[in-house]
Amino acid sequence: MANSKYEYVKAFERENHLLPDCYILVRVDGKGFHKFSQEYGFEKPNDLGALMVMNQTATRLVEAFPDILMAYGDLDEYSFLLRKECALYERREMKLITLFGSMMSTHYIMEWNKQFPEKPIRQSKLPIFDARAVVYPLLKHVRDYFSWRQVDCHINNLYNTVFWALVSKGNMTPKDAENRLIGTLASDKNEILYSQFQINYNNEPEIFKKGTVLIREYQDHTSTDHHQQQQLSKTQLEKEKKKRNKAKIVMYHIDLIKDEFWDSRPFLC
Amino acid sequence: MANSKYEYVKAFERENHLLPDCYILVRVDGKGFHKFSQEYGFEKPNDLGALMVMNQTATRLVEAFPDILMAYGDLDEYSFLLRKECALYERREMKLITLFGSMMSTHYIMEWNKQFPEKPIRQSKLPIFDARAVVYPLLKHVRDYFSWRQVDCHINNLYNTVFWALVSKGNMTPKDAENRLIGTLASDKNEILYSQFQINYNNEPEIFKKGTVLIREYQDHTSTDHHQQQQLSKTQLEKEKKKRNKAKIVMYHIDLIKDEFWDSRPFLC
Amino acid sequence: MANSKYEYVKAFERENHLLPDCYILVRVDGKGFHKFSQEYGFEKPNDLGALMVMNQTATRLVEAFPDILMAYGDLDEYSFLLRKECALYERREMKLITLFGSMMSTHYIMEWNKQFPEKPIRQSKLPIFDARAVVYPLLKHVRDYFSWRQVDCHINNLYNTVFWALVSKGNMTPKDAENRLIGTLASDKNEILYSQFQINYNNEPEIFKKGTVLIREYQDHTSTDHHQQQQLSKTQLEKEKKKRNKAKIVMYHIDLIKDEFWDSRPFLC
Amino acid sequence: MANSKYEYVKAFERENHLLPDCYILVRVDGKGFHKFSQEYGFEKPNDLGALMVMNQTATRLVEAFPDILMAYGDLDEYSFLLRKECALYERREMKLITLFGSMMSTHYIMEWNKQFPEKPIRQSKLPIFDARAVVYPLLKHVRDYFSWRQVDCHINNLYNTVFWALVSKGNMTPKDAENRLIGTLASDKNEILYSQFQINYNNEPEIFKKGTVLIREYQDHTSTDHHQQQQLSKTQLEKEKKKRNKAKIVMYHIDLIKDEFWDSRPFLC
Repeated sequence: MANSKYEYVKAFERENHLLPDCYILVRVDGKGFHKFSQEYGFEKPNDLGALMVMNQTATRLVEAFPDILMAYGDLDEYSFLLRKECALYERREMKLITLFGSMMSTHYIMEWNKQFPEKPIRQSKLPIFDARAVVYPLLKHVRDYFSWRQVDCHINNLYNTVFWALVSKGNMTPKDAENRLIGTLASDKNEILYSQFQINYNNEPEIFKKGTVLIREYQDHTSTDHHQQQQLSKTQLEKEKKKRNKAKIVMYHIDLIKDEFWDSRPFLC
Repeated sequence: MANSKYEYVKAFERENHLLPDCYILVRVDGKGFHKFSQEYGFEKPNDLGALMVMNQTATRLVEAFPDILMAYGDLDEYSFLLRKECALYERREMKLITLFGSMMSTHYIMEWNKQFPEKPIRQSKLPIFDARAVVYPLLKHVRDYFSWRQVDCHINNLYNTVFWALVSKGNMTPKDAENRLIGTLASDKNEILYSQFQINYNNEPEIFKKGTVLIREYQDHTSTDHHQQQQLSKTQLEKEKKKRNKAKIVMYHIDLIKDEFWDSRPFLC
Repeated sequence: MANSKYEYVKAFERENHLLPDCYILVRVDGKGFHKFSQEYGFEKPNDLGALMVMNQTATRLVEAFPDILMAYGDLDEYSFLLRKECALYERREMKLITLFGSMMSTHYIMEWNKQFPEKPIRQSKLPIFDARAVVYPLLKHVRDYFSWRQVDCHINNLYNTVFWALVSKGNMTPKDAENRLIGTLASDKNEILYSQFQINYNNEPEIFKKGTVLIREYQDHTSTDHHQQQQLSKTQLEKEKKKRNKAKIVMYHIDLIKDEFWDSRPFLC
Repeated sequence: MANSKYEYVKAFERENHLLPDCYILVRVDGKGFHKFSQEYGFEKPNDLGALMVMNQTATRLVEAFPDILMAYGDLDEYSFLLRKECALYERREMKLITLFGSMMSTHYIMEWNKQFPEKPIRQSKLPIFDARAVVYPLLKHVRDYFSWRQVDCHINNLYNTVFWALVSKGNMTPKDAENRLIGTLASDKNEILYSQFQINYNNEPEIFKKGTVLIREYQDHTSTDHHQQQQLSKTQLEKEKKKRNKAKIVMYHIDLIKDEFWDSRPFLC
């Protein structure tokens, strides 16, 4: 058929296969969520319902891809850790990230409408997520990645907590509150909260301070590398896959930075 | 703040800036739409309502990005042509394709629910789109790209039209219909349609045979290249941008392969 | 054989096929040629013999690859323009650039030893070249690329001419000469040359002011694109190739920026 | 200066920074060395002098880059292992591979002319090397990489040994020798050597059977990762660097596949 005459245009396509035997980290990030949160009237500094929408949405993705070992999220972003042996779409980067972005945004609509039936998502302001993939050679990098995100969550949340206390309880304008906080350290912010508003930051809910971790908890996992994988019999691979499929997905709001989290979960390596 | 200690993990991120001064073609493609069409009971061989959902969805994207010159779609795929000077997200490939995938899938839900209020999208079967970007140096490649897609549309539609005639009017099983069509040429398929079912394929609706083109029609466009762009005054650039923003988006079901389409639309180059 | 057990390591290799139907520009660049020129006692500001070594070396590469349309060089760098249809090593970037670097440096040794039999290349200071490839969609980009390099040649040569006049004829220290030139315009430099040293820069040799162009001159070339190439008969392709092989390689020291050069050489497009 | 008008062409350049904290393997490979070996009259199946040229050449590169931990070579190829923390040229792939290719080929000329003063390299047949870089996350991959190359060396050498015995001692034509060996296993080849030519393959020189390993032997190395590197004081880094510079480069023809080689050299990890 005459199609062949035009098919040469396919030769311009490029693909990137993510490096084998490395962890894959896919991070999705809400586009313009500051405006999104205004449009749908998020409570400040934190809207627990909106956070639950994010967490439920991310849970749907963890369920859909047994290769996801764990996920961590906060505000309008979520990071998914895929195991080193992941062969999803032959590790094609474009395929992986566009599907994660698309699934995140469609499930978000559904979870939102369940959580907030009184204010469903409107087409004039949709939840749009971009996505990117990063490969990490070592578990150490993965741990530092999640530490990076959790420290970031803490910094943002402390700031937002003080900022909104100054605005809503201290009757400052947003501009004045912003200026008040320029150059302040964490200790200063804790002090403002305590002395001006009798808020002990330590008593704030863990979900706000720590963000949310989703873990595919399974016990009798045996780690295998790329090469061993190739040598497992089909039966063994099927069995391993079934175990991953059946593993329960558990939600925590806990510290990811200290050793304890990782030491007690050898199946994450 | 201690964050710096972990921030080195950002150095593992990679980005690809699409080659300057080339056309960018972004193609979105439905994931598993065969099952999707069964789940939501699409009419066969073509469901006009579902096609309109695709076309309306794509129109929302063309509206959102004035850099889109035109788009072409059929079944569960759509291709968007971005002008050579497009500087959206600094031409970062990952950003562009994940946003196109995410916007396509969320608008699809909204357009579907408007079109089919009696059977709204269910979370158990969501419209997911992957996306890819390809750069083309010359208008010739762009024309051949769209010709490739339109020939593909024709081949698929002729096949589907005969197949479903054999099944629903000819009372063949899908398996038998498939076997009947193995090795048949276009002329054979036309003949089956005409002699067995009194269907003249030429009289089938253009939207099925040709697919759908969306064009940002504007008249007094003056083409400028990368270098000239840099030399246009800010006022001129703003004016050019406004013209693009105001241009009407028009839908056609016409031939993209012959010269006429392109000769009469110099603003597409 | 047991090799298969280890062969999986090949899957970590990555290749980049340069975008089809674009011009390929390969630029080689001497590594540490400032020290190289001191080690082998180059005349200042320009060593005609060393320039001829570069030009002869580049000529060997143009002879070796009929896909090279032209080349331009100056000091320790050379740029080779490969035609858009070039299929050398399937346009694999790594292969192309490493071979250009390797061939440039080995031929340089040979050409140097012919030019300067009294001071052959010593292993303690070898001529090493790095190389890179860039793809350009349009002839306009190619023209601007060569203009960029030729303007750069002019700027460097004017500076070096004044600098060495100040040092060798004006008895300034290099440091003083450098300070004298800070902030001076081209017109100032011309003035210094003329008033202090009675040198009219315009009368300097063209090879220093303009650099060197190598052109594969052939007359009855007919341009064909990627697609037409595929449709040429084998006989025609062979004929075309032979013409390229037989075309004479001519050396010029002329202006590449004005239209005349390009208008009179349609085979360069 | 007017240069700015053309400098936009630089925006078309692309660079690839090799993934941090991974081993870098650079492999150089002779271009057309079959013809090269005929042109310079290599002894068959192995030319010890030519091998020594390769080994000396590779030693020059190991000396030049203290980041090279070890190298392995055979016939016309050599693989260089760079430590994970290597920051040479900011890990820019193009820069690294073109320099390796260029240095390999120029030093080869020099080493050859020392080894064979009676038949120096001629410009009509130069030693040209291509080069590529591969990143490996784990030491396990690095070990398997070298095992892959050493098994390959063994396979090639056994074949060549029998082939040339059949031709030069057995008076077969090359074509007949080739046919004789089709489908033969290693044991068959050993048997032919022994029964027909009284050659015990096990007694062949180790340099032919095992290839050549170059190791930068230093004892009191302490492994540090990317992150620790950043925290070492400048003094410590300088000290570490000096140790690498002073380490002796030792040549072996030994087994790389078994654990012993690696277990006794912890500084290779």
